[in-house]
Parts: sequence; C-alpha cells; structure tokens
Amino acid sequence: MAMVKEKLRKIYENSGVDALYIECDFLRKYLTGFSSTDGYVILDGKSCKFVADPRYFEAAERELKGSGVEVVAGAYPEAMDLIAGKKTLGIPFPFTDASSYERLKKAHTLVDCMPALKQAMIVKSEEELSLIQTACDIAEEAFLELLTELKEGMTENETAALLEYNMRKRGASGTSFDTICAFGAHGSVPHYETGDTKLRFGDPVLIDFGCKVKGYCSDITRTFLFGDDGKHEEFKKIYNSVLTAHELVKENLVAGMTGREGDALARDYLKEKGLDQYFTHSLGHGIGLQIHEYPVLSPRSEEKIADGMVFSDEPGVYIAGRLGIRIEDSMYMKGGKTFSFMHKTTKNLLVLE
Amino acid sequence: MAMVKEKLRKIYENSGVDALYIECDFLRKYLTGFSSTDGYVILDGKSCKFVADPRYFEAAERELKGSGVEVVAGAYPEAMDLIAGKKTLGIPFPFTDASSYERLKKAHTLVDCMPALKQAMIVKSEEELSLIQTACDIAEEAFLELLTELKEGMTENETAALLEYNMRKRGASGTSFDTICAFGAHGSVPHYETGDTKLRFGDPVLIDFGCKVKGYCSDITRTFLFGDDGKHEEFKKIYNSVLTAHELVKENLVAGMTGREGDALARDYLKEKGLDQYFTHSLGHGIGLQIHEYPVLSPRSEEKIADGMVFSDEPGVYIAGRLGIRIEDSMYMKGGKTFSFMHKTTKNLLVLE
Repeated sequence: MAMVKEKLRKIYENSGVDALYIECDFLRKYLTGFSSTDGYVILDGKSCKFVADPRYFEAAERELKGSGVEVVAGAYPEAMDLIAGKKTLGIPFPFTDASSYERLKKAHTLVDCMPALKQAMIVKSEEELSLIQTACDIAEEAFLELLTELKEGMTENETAALLEYNMRKRGASGTSFDTICAFGAHGSVPHYETGDTKLRFGDPVLIDFGCKVKGYCSDITRTFLFGDDGKHEEFKKIYNSVLTAHELVKENLVAGMTGREGDALARDYLKEKGLDQYFTHSLGHGIGLQIHEYPVLSPRSEEKIADGMVFSDEPGVYIAGRLGIRIEDSMYMKGGKTFSFMHKTTKNLLVLE
Repeated sequence: MAMVKEKLRKIYENSGVDALYIECDFLRKYLTGFSSTDGYVILDGKSCKFVADPRYFEAAERELKGSGVEVVAGAYPEAMDLIAGKKTLGIPFPFTDASSYERLKKAHTLVDCMPALKQAMIVKSEEELSLIQTACDIAEEAFLELLTELKEGMTENETAALLEYNMRKRGASGTSFDTICAFGAHGSVPHYETGDTKLRFGDPVLIDFGCKVKGYCSDITRTFLFGDDGKHEEFKKIYNSVLTAHELVKENLVAGMTGREGDALARDYLKEKGLDQYFTHSLGHGIGLQIHEYPVLSPRSEEKIADGMVFSDEPGVYIAGRLGIRIEDSMYMKGGKTFSFMHKTTKNLLVLE
C-alpha cells in the first residue's frame, strides 16, 4: 500500500479529525501534486486518495505512480462512499461552498482544516521556492523583452498582450492574475482595468503582472517613464520615496516580525515624506499556488514572518487623476532575512528613450 | 435616489428575502456591471449598493454613474452595517464559502438566492449575447491566424502561447480557461495539460480554447491533421462520426427539450457507430460570465433549453493512447432553434499542407 507522505501526515494530525475531504482545485493540487479542474481528495492517517473522473484518470494514474497518493476512479458518489462513517470531517471552510457545507453537515461533524493546511502551505519547500523563482525569472525576462517592443501608439491592451505572450512562450502556463497596464494618470487607480488608451511620449507606465509555472505564481510591478517630457519633477521625487519604502522592507524585515511591523517599515517612511495618505492598500500578501495567500503584511496583521515564507513587497502612492507609482517584487525569507526573487530588472527609475 | 433596474428587481423579488448579499466576483459583476476582485453588493427592493474599497472606488463611481447602482466607500465593516437588521438574507450558497456562511448565520436567516440568480443569468440579454459573439469571433480569428503560423517542431506550449496572443491582441482580456493543446495521441486525454511535445508531420492536433470579452467567455475546440502521413484512416472515419454527432445537435435541438435529450442527440448517434463508450463526458455546458454554467447538457440533466440560453456542443471520442477527437462550438438558442456563434472556421477535417 502507498505510504502517506510526511507533509500530508502532519496536516492530517494537525487537523484532529477522522479524515480531510477536499473539493477545491488548488488545495487538491497541493495535496496530490496533480493539476485538475475536478476531483476529490480524502486524506486520513492511512492513505491519501484522489478520486478522478474519466477526464483525469489516465493522466493521474501515470503521474502519481509512487507518489503515495492512490488514484480512485469515480466522481462525487465514490467520494461520498470514501468518507462514509467518518465522524469528524475536516474541510477547508474558506474554500468550501455553503451548499457542500450544508450537505456534508448532515452526516458529519465538520471542522475547519484550513488552519492545518495554512500552517503547512505558508512555509514553502525548496521545490516550491524553485517553481516561484522560475515564475519570477520568466516574468522579468518577459518584461525586459517588452521594453524593446514598446512603441508610441500601442494600446494598454496590446502592451499587456505582448507581455503575456513573452511569459507564455518562456514556459508559463498563463498569467497569475489579470495584467494591469496603465498609461499616464491611469496609474492612480490601484486596480486599473487595462484598456485601449494609446501610449504617448512622456507617459508614465505602470505594469503589474505575473505568471504561473506548474501552478505557482509570480507577482511584480514596475513603473517607468516612456520618454521624459520634462514635466515629471513630482513624479521622480515620489518615485524615489516609493523605491526607498520598498527597499527598507527588504533590508529590515527579519524573522519574527509581524505582518504589521513589515507593513510599517514602508508606511512609516512614506509618512515621514507626507505620502502615507496616498498609500491606500496593504504592503503585501503571501504568494504560492494562489496569487493572494499568507502571510498578510498589513497594518492589522499579527502573523509572524518566518523562513520559507513568500510574499510581495509593494508600496504605492496614488494621487487620484494625477499619478500612480507602485514598485513590487516577490520576496522570500531565508536564514531570518528577506530576499527578492527578482534579479534581472532594475528598480531605479527607467526612462525609455 | 438611483432606481433599481428591472433585472435586479426581479432577482430580488424571486429571492423572497429582505436583502441579497453578494461577495463573489462574477455575481458582483453580473449585478453591477463593474469588474473588481473585491467588494460587496447589497440588493433590496429600494436600492442596489456596491461597497468598494479605495482600489476600486474612483473607477466604480465613474463607471456606475446613472446605472442605478450606488457606490459606497468601504469594505467588510461597511457591508455588515448595510445588512444589519435584515432578517432574511439571500446569499448564493454555491458561491459563498463556509466561513462566511457560519458568520452570517449568527445574525440572519440565510436563504440560497442562487436559484433566483440562475433563473436570470441562464437567459442572456442581447448585450450579453453580443459580448459572447465578440469573444467567439476573436477566438476564431485567432485560430485562423495560428494556422498560418504553425510549424513543425513547435511545442504545444508555444502553440498555445501564440493562439492566446492572437486572441489578446484582438481585444480579449484573457483566456476563458487554460488552453488545451494536444499533439498526437495526447488528444485522448480529454483535459490534457499542455506540455513541451513538439509538432511532427502527420500529427493530429486538438486545441480547446476560448477568451473573455468584458467578462464573457467563448469556448471552441478544433481537431485537425498537421499533414497527412497516410496513417489516419481510422482517425478520419471517427472524425466524421464526431462531426455528424456535433451537427445533429445543432439541427435537432429545439426549445423545450431537456439537457438530457440534447445530449442524447449526439450520444445516440455515436452509439449507432459503436463509439459511445469513448464519449466519456457530457455533451455541453452553459457559457456566460463563467466558462461552466447553466444549462447542463448531460445524460442526467432535466433542464429545459430555451431562447437566450448559451451552451457548448462538444461531442468527443477518446481512445486511450491512440486518438482523441473533439469538435466544439459555442451555441445559442433563438426562435426555438439552435445556432452556432462560430462562422469563420470550418469544422470539416482540415489537413494542413
């Protein structure tokens, strides 16, 4: 019989339930290592079973041989058979819908197993870090290629399309979120919806983007000038403040500090510069199989940052209708210190000629 | 005060609750028309309020002026204030997580408002049909361009990347799902994960893809031969059977038939040909803001197909390790009959020279 791997055994033990039952895509992927848009995972002390329907069965059998995960042919009814008789059932409350919850509650005592999953997932393995590194490398290389392709008159959408193609052809499976490409003052909308505005000489350009490699995400934002029309004194001054805020986090965020303390490293500096009222979001979020996960770096987060955690460092200043500047790297903690995954692109203000 | 639009009033009335409370992205988009990754919608008989945080507030205010949707600055606490005192609260059970469900249950009687939302969403408006038509046009044009770009030695990933770029540069905001590009016998895995296999002369190519336009999806699959090496007699014979199955649905699916009867139009024909055991999935699924929605066309679906509904017609035959053929158009019903959104690409077997 296949042995349940250490990682899964710990999650099972920390959940304190008879079995875990998972319907959600990215958690299924985390537990089994296999990507699918459907299926069920049942984990207990003895086995980890993946119930796969005919669309996935063939591929799952092949890929999961020797992994410790047993592939069971079937769908919902087979999954229900496997949890029958399990008194306490661990389900991830934030990723289980209310219909499933109500249905499962009739036969089981439901316990939220998300704390146990989160505890495991928040610390990345070497393999996970390496996939995120690849996703970051691809994003940076794609951006460098884009810089050689940008031309006056291109739309935000065309620019995003090119950047995404540059990532995809380097092996990314897709974007990790909808690319934000904002020309001119559009950058002042932190979650701007990329549109058909055309690039003009002298425009500030803000691009927030990332890709996925084997399910793992990268996240990066660069703000630069498409030519200098001599009207950017304020922009340049604020850019340097945002960059310093960004760098202060990398230099001073050490193991044991909370998400709140990490956020404050950037926020307090922007306050000194009189810019904190324009920094209207959190400093950062965890990155992994999801683009937004743990830890959270915000004024309200008491999560302690530790080795193996991956998160964004993305201070920004947004003055409505006037300018928007955000500088973001994906970061990780190792040996108690904070490092960036990004090594290929500059964060000094870039002025394209 | 802003008037609540007819569409929203009906959903509210059909829900039979004091208010609807929506946290989920695509439902928020459906109710407000505004795209965001965060926010809360509260709908009652008097108003539809969208609670937007600083990332979205500026854009939402501008876009929703005169729409009948009021934008309220805030986040979760403000949303909670707005539903305080609402005795019965409608939430969409399939799109509300168990944590929210448990939290809301403490102060409200919760009712699943998904049936009311589904009843509205399953019938597309002219505007929605037109967006899906655009998403289909873009997908077809992108595919036609890809056919001129395919070269021996290209990988599945490179092919998918090019196709996606071709859609993106035509104005799509992104893919509607992960593109499936399978060379050779890989097509026999219905949900194949696009990889690094290189294209060789004589390969069958199966590509299942689609894009999004203002949130609305397209879905299309084409299977063709990259050159004819003379070893495809069985492939060609089965291709014609799958194509006939596909066409039979378009010709014979009329208003009032159930999803089961629609599915049977294709499945019964494949049975006549001795191929039904290789047709291992449902005939089709609804398409809209989500790539898989209502109606379902499967052997178990009793949903009646009616005017304004949009769904895929995608019979397939998969013989493990040997071949896979799927032919899919996005379809709609009008005047009681079934029509395809696809007019630009052929479904006759294409052999690239």
